[in-house]
Amino acid sequence: MRYYQLREEGTPRLAVEAAGGVYDITAATPRLRTFDDLLCAATITDSSADTVANDLLEKAATLPSDALENGSVSAPVLGEVWAAGVTYRISEEARKSESSMPEMYLDVYENDRPEVFFKATPDRTVGPGEGVGIRADSEWDVPEPELGVVLSGEEIVGYTIGNDMSSRSIEGKNPLYLPQAKVYDRCCSIGPCIRSADSIDDPHDLEMWMTISRDGEIRYDEATNTGKMVRSVEELVDCYVAHNAVPDVSVLLTGTSLVPDEGFTLEEGDVIEIGLEGIGTLTNTVVEV
Amino acid sequence: MRYYQLREEGTPRLAVEAAGGVYDITAATPRLRTFDDLLCAATITDSSADTVANDLLEKAATLPSDALENGSVSAPVLGEVWAAGVTYRISEEARKSESSMPEMYLDVYENDRPEVFFKATPDRTVGPGEGVGIRADSEWDVPEPELGVVLSGEEIVGYTIGNDMSSRSIEGKNPLYLPQAKVYDRCCSIGPCIRSADSIDDPHDLEMWMTISRDGEIRYDEATNTGKMVRSVEELVDCYVAHNAVPDVSVLLTGTSLVPDEGFTLEEGDVIEIGLEGIGTLTNTVVEV
Amino acid sequence: MRYYQLREEGTPRLAVEAAGGVYDITAATPRLRTFDDLLCAATITDSSADTVANDLLEKAATLPSDALENGSVSAPVLGEVWAAGVTYRISEEARKSESSMPEMYLDVYENDRPEVFFKATPDRTVGPGEGVGIRADSEWDVPEPELGVVLSGEEIVGYTIGNDMSSRSIEGKNPLYLPQAKVYDRCCSIGPCIRSADSIDDPHDLEMWMTISRDGEIRYDEATNTGKMVRSVEELVDCYVAHNAVPDVSVLLTGTSLVPDEGFTLEEGDVIEIGLEGIGTLTNTVVEV
Amino acid sequence: MRYYQLREEGTPRLAVEAAGGVYDITAATPRLRTFDDLLCAATITDSSADTVANDLLEKAATLPSDALENGSVSAPVLGEVWAAGVTYRISEEARKSESSMPEMYLDVYENDRPEVFFKATPDRTVGPGEGVGIRADSEWDVPEPELGVVLSGEEIVGYTIGNDMSSRSIEGKNPLYLPQAKVYDRCCSIGPCIRSADSIDDPHDLEMWMTISRDGEIRYDEATNTGKMVRSVEELVDCYVAHNAVPDVSVLLTGTSLVPDEGFTLEEGDVIEIGLEGIGTLTNTVVEV
Repeated sequence: MRYYQLREEGTPRLAVEAAGGVYDITAATPRLRTFDDLLCAATITDSSADTVANDLLEKAATLPSDALENGSVSAPVLGEVWAAGVTYRISEEARKSESSMPEMYLDVYENDRPEVFFKATPDRTVGPGEGVGIRADSEWDVPEPELGVVLSGEEIVGYTIGNDMSSRSIEGKNPLYLPQAKVYDRCCSIGPCIRSADSIDDPHDLEMWMTISRDGEIRYDEATNTGKMVRSVEELVDCYVAHNAVPDVSVLLTGTSLVPDEGFTLEEGDVIEIGLEGIGTLTNTVVEV
Repeated sequence: MRYYQLREEGTPRLAVEAAGGVYDITAATPRLRTFDDLLCAATITDSSADTVANDLLEKAATLPSDALENGSVSAPVLGEVWAAGVTYRISEEARKSESSMPEMYLDVYENDRPEVFFKATPDRTVGPGEGVGIRADSEWDVPEPELGVVLSGEEIVGYTIGNDMSSRSIEGKNPLYLPQAKVYDRCCSIGPCIRSADSIDDPHDLEMWMTISRDGEIRYDEATNTGKMVRSVEELVDCYVAHNAVPDVSVLLTGTSLVPDEGFTLEEGDVIEIGLEGIGTLTNTVVEV
Repeated sequence: MRYYQLREEGTPRLAVEAAGGVYDITAATPRLRTFDDLLCAATITDSSADTVANDLLEKAATLPSDALENGSVSAPVLGEVWAAGVTYRISEEARKSESSMPEMYLDVYENDRPEVFFKATPDRTVGPGEGVGIRADSEWDVPEPELGVVLSGEEIVGYTIGNDMSSRSIEGKNPLYLPQAKVYDRCCSIGPCIRSADSIDDPHDLEMWMTISRDGEIRYDEATNTGKMVRSVEELVDCYVAHNAVPDVSVLLTGTSLVPDEGFTLEEGDVIEIGLEGIGTLTNTVVEV
Repeated sequence: MRYYQLREEGTPRLAVEAAGGVYDITAATPRLRTFDDLLCAATITDSSADTVANDLLEKAATLPSDALENGSVSAPVLGEVWAAGVTYRISEEARKSESSMPEMYLDVYENDRPEVFFKATPDRTVGPGEGVGIRADSEWDVPEPELGVVLSGEEIVGYTIGNDMSSRSIEGKNPLYLPQAKVYDRCCSIGPCIRSADSIDDPHDLEMWMTISRDGEIRYDEATNTGKMVRSVEELVDCYVAHNAVPDVSVLLTGTSLVPDEGFTLEEGDVIEIGLEGIGTLTNTVVEV
């Protein structure tokens, strides 16, 4: 099942997309307004979001098919976003060519400990249709399309799409600048929905693609598969939660292999679309911050 | 003037230490409960925290001298904590000895852009007397005593003491592991008070010292001066706020030169005391997380 | 000066209408988002809302004249609403005719202690353009247009318009049913703005009028003046705050003399417009709850 | 089962008293911190608080028997409190003696519609061991011990003890003064726990008693039974929720027949103990407000 946060004035409402259609499940029980409410109920009852939601569908209200269109939904959860890096297969060739990749990446690649870092606070994270930021002091900016793991405490409860916006020029100058390349105004986008963990067969076999359009023309169009990850989702989650003060709900982005090459940098107005099999498409327009 | 958040059951109360003694200024106007409330008033009226507080002293209640003792006060603000690194002078000798310092530190040292990073959320930050954390998966852990700059939006309004707890073993393995060495459960301590910016002559000339005791015996005892910083506070703040979504109130730690050498690692139960001229002493006991 | 809460998605913004035009004062200092923020600053600095706002106008952004139209603003404050009754002059004639008025009203009229009661929580209060409720189990429903006093703690800081919706049939059956006639879903409306206390010459000399339209036709149209009150605003406030746990911000409605006579009851769809000299017009449509 | 809110510094914790002892159920699932959290889970899963709690007991931590002593627990829920009046049997004798009882009470007694009124906001409500208020401008003050119904939305989920403090002198002067006699600083107490609806056989057959002590001497000591109510709990709840904007969690007090007679008025320092079969004892000391 897929969960969407409806962008309503006043009280928020949770929508669910199931086999039978799209439902407003807040109508079934007004106490349930957000995915976090659903998680609260599922966590306390040691159940799953889908089991809880499924029992409510009968009493839920049916929504028209355009209820989930871009502009009608906001970020599916409000929570900290963390991210991982160097998680996708690096070709033998790239590994050998020292010039194309600093040694520290290869070192993480081969090391037991993954690279996991704090990516964004809720107020630096945007939802579908909102502007994602590029720093005005950066010359080379790229989106990083990623599978996002949604966690209730330490437990994996769903998946979403994340865009881990990055300044390649700042990051490239010195590894100690990485946080500045990663954490800034509007540096992250998540959405459009949360696909429940129960309804994803294998998070390690999902097609992922990204297009970037400028003035209506496609400037980037590539695809990959999460099967090309060299770390498992569980391994990344273990690293994130270990010795950490994990909040009630959070999102962990799992890295990417889809990055525009050196000849390309994002510009204000560019439209980024990220698709992930079984989840949907996350669309954002670039704004300078 | 120095501002302390009293650890009261129920409604929080703000205390101020001025020339004439210690005052409960919440008694003067019940609307003023936290330093953040005071900042709100000062910011909106384009005034300073001290000017606003000074006008309230006459109506404030006098507090006994033990009102500010350890255990009576909590962290002076609830806000994001950011931190800076490689901000203190590095000796010519150290710079030349490649082995003692990776090149990336020297590079930051000489570069225009400082190293500024996201350090802690409010729920990972502790106050005076509370336990600061060392990661159970780390072998080499150190405190980093630092001058903390308190900001109202982008404006410097005060100073506090910060302890930027760090895992040297995790950080040392790979620069990409730095966030794991820095952001974890109880990774940061601030306090015991906020000294107003107006009442600090020169933040670049403050004595700072740290002692670490184990089983009643002093194991580390060194001192430095913020005058040994090679970046100005303003420069670090400029870097932090640029292109960032700065919250209403936050703290920026400014780096340190007081770090125990390789032979020393923190253990559970160690007591860390950090003193900063004109501000006070921040005391915490180490707990494993 | 008049203060309006702009109905913006995301961050709320405060607008002020002054001699020179309409301004977005949140643009002057982003920390100032609501009238409550302004009150916080004014209260702590022992100043007035107008003094604080005036100092910000220069840095504020100018708004177009239609920025304050119905639909663009929400209730001007979120706070408890209390109300007073039997505060307007009762004619000698009415007083003598026992049948037209139960003795308890005359008793309050002549007594030192005013009638003051809890009217509404913030979630039972609507703003301009929103639906005000009539109970489905009531046969006789009326609006009560009233001058609203806005309080910061115990201090009068401004005035607004309030509609103290009432079920005459429930109230008329037994005085002990009064709370049911007064406190229910959407039982109260306030707005469209707050006029600062400093800029109102005399709250006891304001023209007040109300029209009720049904299907485009005016069914009620009467006017009065707050000068016909037999209690002063200060007297009512004194009664409200005495021995009470007064919140940071609240509204006290001061009673009315404009009530449709027995032949009239509100119906779903009726449009109620309440005008108050120097403040503006509060418009709401009736919905059954 | 009985639910207690532990008075802990920092994070709140929920305790449950079941056949086998006293448990900290927050230890079983850290997401569950308050009775409201439990209700959220039970409501959304269409289950009961007891069913949800029971499944957690195995993983919960055992608490010592003194964990629930006075001073260790706070008010069991934070929510609006409403109350009902004239709900207990009035003797034929009293009904005939007009002088002893105003007609409006008899009228409510015989009428279909009960008397239900807004009693207190959370910040005017105290918990076990805290001071309950008497107004300094009142000459005759009494406690009203009552069975409290705990509601999740419109559903009865549990029972507690309530003290509907009342000024008889203010109420007696004029029915329109009733709200002032009922809603003021510290006007209400609830606690010490919530007994689940599932574990109460019949709320209409519970022994209720009250003692009032002054300087260690018992000044009032009477008992009644909720079986003497002439309204059912369901009837009172129906009246409360009808046409109302019912919050997520609230408490409805159901009236009393235990009231000290005219010769007695509360004084500062008096200790009020209210016992209710199957629930416990609620103790408060009187303070003047």
